[in-house]
Amino acid sequence: MTGIDINCDMGESFGNWTMGNDADVMPYVTSANIAGGYHAGDPHVMRETVELAADHGVGIGVHPGLPDKVGFGRRTMDASPAEVRDYVVYQLGALAAFARRHGTSVQHVKPHGAMYSMLSDSAEHARAVMEGMLEVDEDLIYLATDMNIHEVAQQVDGLRAVFEGYVDLDYRADRSLIVEQELSDRDPDLVADRFVSIATDGVVEAANGEEISVPADSICIHGDNPNAVELLEAIHERIDDHDIELVGLPELVAD
Amino acid sequence: MTGIDINCDMGESFGNWTMGNDADVMPYVTSANIAGGYHAGDPHVMRETVELAADHGVGIGVHPGLPDKVGFGRRTMDASPAEVRDYVVYQLGALAAFARRHGTSVQHVKPHGAMYSMLSDSAEHARAVMEGMLEVDEDLIYLATDMNIHEVAQQVDGLRAVFEGYVDLDYRADRSLIVEQELSDRDPDLVADRFVSIATDGVVEAANGEEISVPADSICIHGDNPNAVELLEAIHERIDDHDIELVGLPELVAD
Amino acid sequence: MTGIDINCDMGESFGNWTMGNDADVMPYVTSANIAGGYHAGDPHVMRETVELAADHGVGIGVHPGLPDKVGFGRRTMDASPAEVRDYVVYQLGALAAFARRHGTSVQHVKPHGAMYSMLSDSAEHARAVMEGMLEVDEDLIYLATDMNIHEVAQQVDGLRAVFEGYVDLDYRADRSLIVEQELSDRDPDLVADRFVSIATDGVVEAANGEEISVPADSICIHGDNPNAVELLEAIHERIDDHDIELVGLPELVAD
Amino acid sequence: MTGIDINCDMGESFGNWTMGNDADVMPYVTSANIAGGYHAGDPHVMRETVELAADHGVGIGVHPGLPDKVGFGRRTMDASPAEVRDYVVYQLGALAAFARRHGTSVQHVKPHGAMYSMLSDSAEHARAVMEGMLEVDEDLIYLATDMNIHEVAQQVDGLRAVFEGYVDLDYRADRSLIVEQELSDRDPDLVADRFVSIATDGVVEAANGEEISVPADSICIHGDNPNAVELLEAIHERIDDHDIELVGLPELVAD
Repeated sequence: MTGIDINCDMGESFGNWTMGNDADVMPYVTSANIAGGYHAGDPHVMRETVELAADHGVGIGVHPGLPDKVGFGRRTMDASPAEVRDYVVYQLGALAAFARRHGTSVQHVKPHGAMYSMLSDSAEHARAVMEGMLEVDEDLIYLATDMNIHEVAQQVDGLRAVFEGYVDLDYRADRSLIVEQELSDRDPDLVADRFVSIATDGVVEAANGEEISVPADSICIHGDNPNAVELLEAIHERIDDHDIELVGLPELVAD
Repeated sequence: MTGIDINCDMGESFGNWTMGNDADVMPYVTSANIAGGYHAGDPHVMRETVELAADHGVGIGVHPGLPDKVGFGRRTMDASPAEVRDYVVYQLGALAAFARRHGTSVQHVKPHGAMYSMLSDSAEHARAVMEGMLEVDEDLIYLATDMNIHEVAQQVDGLRAVFEGYVDLDYRADRSLIVEQELSDRDPDLVADRFVSIATDGVVEAANGEEISVPADSICIHGDNPNAVELLEAIHERIDDHDIELVGLPELVAD
Repeated sequence: MTGIDINCDMGESFGNWTMGNDADVMPYVTSANIAGGYHAGDPHVMRETVELAADHGVGIGVHPGLPDKVGFGRRTMDASPAEVRDYVVYQLGALAAFARRHGTSVQHVKPHGAMYSMLSDSAEHARAVMEGMLEVDEDLIYLATDMNIHEVAQQVDGLRAVFEGYVDLDYRADRSLIVEQELSDRDPDLVADRFVSIATDGVVEAANGEEISVPADSICIHGDNPNAVELLEAIHERIDDHDIELVGLPELVAD
Repeated sequence: MTGIDINCDMGESFGNWTMGNDADVMPYVTSANIAGGYHAGDPHVMRETVELAADHGVGIGVHPGLPDKVGFGRRTMDASPAEVRDYVVYQLGALAAFARRHGTSVQHVKPHGAMYSMLSDSAEHARAVMEGMLEVDEDLIYLATDMNIHEVAQQVDGLRAVFEGYVDLDYRADRSLIVEQELSDRDPDLVADRFVSIATDGVVEAANGEEISVPADSICIHGDNPNAVELLEAIHERIDDHDIELVGLPELVAD
């Protein structure tokens, strides 16, 4: 029996502006990465998203971003390691308070957009964030999007990290992702096949046909994909035919 | 032996803009009300202020404000009880994360400016905030600035509240405060006399000469008063001559 | 031949968050009320919306809001007349710069949401805004949403104001509007009938069946109504059968 | 008779937070670079600063910054040329509206902090900003802080640019500036000597004793220097002894 997690970015609405389909997607995932109010989200959206996740027994993570709503946290900025750490601590704490109101807690941290890129490019920034989150709560899990960051995470004392893979985007042979400008419908069969392939064998076929290693214990699904729910349904159906079990991040890192 | 707390608003700098004299004032107080990043403060200022408070063994409270930096949180806004509660939960959680990084925790909540006025004017708003903070952490203490709020606090199940008095402002006979447009030097002797009078007898002389009841267990000092440190020194000196002991809020509410 | 203007709120997207259907609606209107970046909009959205309006020869107005994106400018706040005026001047100027880049200018001012309510409730606030906008540009027209404000506008020296009516909402007999919580499809025939009735006779049937006077020279259409384009098409078709001509605000106030 | 301009950054207070000594410095300068509300300033501060400048007959310029108040606009961000241009247009327009309220107009543009660095590093960004400002108002003057930008400015059709020098900071031999972490008192005689030397001969002594060329027609004074007023007084006294006349930027670029 192979255990794997499905994570999805959530809570990225802001004020009167809606983004994503959180209510539709939540039933199918095991981990929700909830925006912390910097690149997206606000206290009201956070509260509602935490409630939704708690109602579905979905693990709550913080998805902290840079303080740049107009740019949706996608523009790197020349912030120091300590500054980025402070932004993560702030957003993590804010979300944790909403989680506690619902008798639960924050289980993981997955930086968003340009903050993620900055951590991937600078081990010093990555370490500052990872050490900072452990100082707040030593049980927090880091959800790592690429191998650079995953390697830094291995070196941070006491930090448990989970590596994530993608099935609704194409990989290049070097394990980088081909990010499309516009989200579009994805083939549910292809996506579900990839899910099974990564879950059972830790491999996936890259765009050039080469089979590459993606040793992921969590799969990220883009909830704002137009047919995200269809993709998730296809994955759930396929899971039943294989020896794959959906489990949360804490189970995956438990030894 | 009479126990009393001294509280002061702190962490109201923002980015490159400095406000107050936190480092000078911190050694003299027992409770710091730290801005939560809405009316003032930011993650970096919060971290530094928490460090400063922790270094001096000063109790950490959150001083949440309305989301209005340009107005310094001093303009009431037509926000619902649930909205105001969400703003408090968000700021409380953010500060709590910084506190935990320093091995400590948030002990109290004291709303700022127009948020305070809104709670004083609307019991529904006050209850929403008080219940919300208890849902996050049932040990949190509410620092109540007037009797309206203190009465609401008595009715919230499980909530421990402390009533605060003022010695660097003049009271009217109806126990309302005469707030000056511009802060100015205060007479240290007068301020220290008032401190002793409230601490020992729970009374103070109003502007019209009448003696009024101020049953306060905590005294608020305005740290941005030009001679705040001088006032605090005078209070500390006077304390030694009387049977007054400075104690933190948790001791005051312990039964 | 009766001249009438159709105005619509535009440019209320923000960063990556989309709102409204500006591109679909723009071909049918004569005046665009463009968000100034406070309750909605940002410099990039403003630029695109100004381009769109200029391409269609639509008159550009500023739709200034309170500094409250989370509340979408719908929460009144205790801001002074001078403060509100400053917010209008700031947003008006910002939009004017984008207009000038396209060889055009801002022709009118229509305050949004709670700012509008504040001006309607306080003649002092309304006068401050109206005088402020004339100090910036004496040719600016004020688009008045209710009679309170229209009366104040009459008293401001040199100010030209246009009164607007609604056809995609129901009036009460006292000429107040029945605002629905959720926008829903409206009957195109009914809406077009009302348009003709207001344009030609200055009257409309209220919800209770009574005929009331609505002496409007501009009709506001809610561009975020699900069938806004259908409503506008119906209006345009009906116009051709009557002696109604769509004209911009400057023509309406020209003497 | 040599004409030269003195410019100073102004209007960098924000809400209740004060920065600089605008009222004290304004009488001594000919050009004020007023913050546009992004890195610093707000509509109320802008209005007051425009009033102050207009009262002293000081030329008004916009000092636009990146949208980063917490970082005071000093952190570069990965924004596109069009995005940065939009930020400049927005802030320029906002300030222009306040200027028009006082019967005056914006005469120049001087980008702040990291925005300035981004323009200096990327000719594409610099050109986008320069062309954008001319599209708004073809009479606007660009105040250039280094030779990179000044060269780009020469190539923008119709743009008039003025090069500025510094006298309250030390130059390196390569004409870069030695920026101190903390502002401190400067020697008024040294500063005034440098002013005269640049104004009359276009040269100044670098930190290593070498004489370098600084062909500046405007001198920037840091208004937040602790003894800024003393420095300006010394400069004004020295001017009277030499054939130097303080003139505004428009006079300097007039042919």
